[in-house]
Amino acid sequence: MVAVMAVDGVAGAATAIDAASQALLDEVLAGRRKAIARMMSIAESSAAEAKPVMAALHRHTGRAHIVGLTGVPGSGKSTMVRALAQRFRATGRTVGVVAIDPSSPFTGGAILGDRIRMLDLSGDPGVFIRSMATRGALGGLSRSTLDVVDVLDAAGFDVVVIETVGVGQDEVDIVQAAHSVVVVSAPGLGDEIQAIKAGVLEIADIHVVSKCDRPEASETIATLRAMLRLGSLGRDTASVWETPLIATSAQKRDGIETLVTSIDAHRVHLRESGELAGRYRRILEMRILKAAEDIVRDRLLRRNRGLLDRLLDDTQARTLDPYTAATRLLQAAGG
Amino acid sequence: MVAVMAVDGVAGAATAIDAASQALLDEVLAGRRKAIARMMSIAESSAAEAKPVMAALHRHTGRAHIVGLTGVPGSGKSTMVRALAQRFRATGRTVGVVAIDPSSPFTGGAILGDRIRMLDLSGDPGVFIRSMATRGALGGLSRSTLDVVDVLDAAGFDVVVIETVGVGQDEVDIVQAAHSVVVVSAPGLGDEIQAIKAGVLEIADIHVVSKCDRPEASETIATLRAMLRLGSLGRDTASVWETPLIATSAQKRDGIETLVTSIDAHRVHLRESGELAGRYRRILEMRILKAAEDIVRDRLLRRNRGLLDRLLDDTQARTLDPYTAATRLLQAAGG
Repeated sequence: MVAVMAVDGVAGAATAIDAASQALLDEVLAGRRKAIARMMSIAESSAAEAKPVMAALHRHTGRAHIVGLTGVPGSGKSTMVRALAQRFRATGRTVGVVAIDPSSPFTGGAILGDRIRMLDLSGDPGVFIRSMATRGALGGLSRSTLDVVDVLDAAGFDVVVIETVGVGQDEVDIVQAAHSVVVVSAPGLGDEIQAIKAGVLEIADIHVVSKCDRPEASETIATLRAMLRLGSLGRDTASVWETPLIATSAQKRDGIETLVTSIDAHRVHLRESGELAGRYRRILEMRILKAAEDIVRDRLLRRNRGLLDRLLDDTQARTLDPYTAATRLLQAAGG
Repeated sequence: MVAVMAVDGVAGAATAIDAASQALLDEVLAGRRKAIARMMSIAESSAAEAKPVMAALHRHTGRAHIVGLTGVPGSGKSTMVRALAQRFRATGRTVGVVAIDPSSPFTGGAILGDRIRMLDLSGDPGVFIRSMATRGALGGLSRSTLDVVDVLDAAGFDVVVIETVGVGQDEVDIVQAAHSVVVVSAPGLGDEIQAIKAGVLEIADIHVVSKCDRPEASETIATLRAMLRLGSLGRDTASVWETPLIATSAQKRDGIETLVTSIDAHRVHLRESGELAGRYRRILEMRILKAAEDIVRDRLLRRNRGLLDRLLDDTQARTLDPYTAATRLLQAAGG
């Protein structure tokens, strides 16, 4: 086995990970649930000590198919994720789920009840569900989410589903970091809710209309179909992939098989067209740039606190502006 | 008049803004609407040329009271903003509104129809409304939003209201950059929607329950009141400010006067308690750090494209991980 080296973020010196980290990593690679959960907590923390082991882990990723599933509140996407996970399991694949919850510090975590709703899956060792808080991550949400996805990938899960409400820039970045993006629309939601959805419609590789047992569903399907025909939707017009529109009813399990077939077809398309490499490269570029931003912010706060305070004094007195203050801070930090 | 100097982001050399920029700035300070709109477009662009004039403009800010108003889809916050603007106008104050719309590139802009709904205000020179797209800003949403707020502040508007759905990290950062944060709750929304709201409940300086003509409103009010009593809500427990809970009906204009009185009382409280300075400093620190991140990202993409591509090759081959790649990129960039 090749020794795993990682560059320390501060000194830039190459350091191997310690024995305890290596043991944990080995357990993750062997698929041990306790180790996976611990590694996820490490991934979620922004501690500098976490970096080397995450760096080592990253090299074991790349096998899982990452599915981003997004939909507005009320679109029934949590039910959809559960049905999807069950269907993937029925085809013999293991499934990891990362649910990004709008949660609150005062409840101490997720309040959407995903864990409860997912209970019928939780006894299955082929399923691993992680709920993540969207608050408190302080700019590092996309980094930590994709690190948690890496843990599931390295642990050998065949499919990893990222579930997010898809509102907010960081959240859209995350869903765009998936190989296959599924956007869930539901009939009969209000104007404001539909408007929020608009921001993610065009990043869909697969459109799903949920709750198609409802009479209003045909209108929603017709509208989406018209948009698709006009070519105003669809992620990449240069691609030969024809964005499908799938009518589902998660309650009745209708359309879920078709959805899994479509996701698989999209994966094949990505591989055969060579698009997978390009998409993966875009995702990596985003991750590298976000990591760079995290490192810079962390350094400035740690090493240049005194200068930052003086610049804040001047900015507060309005003899300086935030942009110039940032420039001076970066200059002093040797940037 | 003191010559306005701005430090160029790249070379770090001090440069005065050019005559055309100075003329535009003077027109903004004089409150000319065309100039305000043009300056806002400059603020929204991420062009390096925009920095010196924005830096110069910043020094003329600090007079406006910035109100952040957030609420989930369906809470009726757009109607609330309109009623609020009309009430502020009735008290003789001018009002700027920055509405952060979940919008889409394929519609070419805002689709929430705020501009239409705001029509009854649009003939009034004491009101200026700007809708901003949440997509396409590529990480700079909070920077550009607060720069647009700066333009309204410098142009002399007494109150600036930032309206946002309050979902997503960047969006929560924005609303936390306001002096007074108003969180709108509405009766009878679904579980998922209420859960989304939870993330912003605790940053409220003022709670508003809208649509109180509805029978379900009393339950919503009782729940919020219980949370307030338990001390689990409220922005700052060390503060003597008691977070009020205001029942409104924007349709009937009920409670809007009370809301304006509360916002004014909060402003007085911030000044007299000395909290305003502390809050303003936190906002500035956030702005400086975000500006630093923007500068670093911009530099890396502009100056180190070749290295980034080589690091991407290695990361794609999984002989390197994104974090180590970011570290090397920053080292090469002289960081």
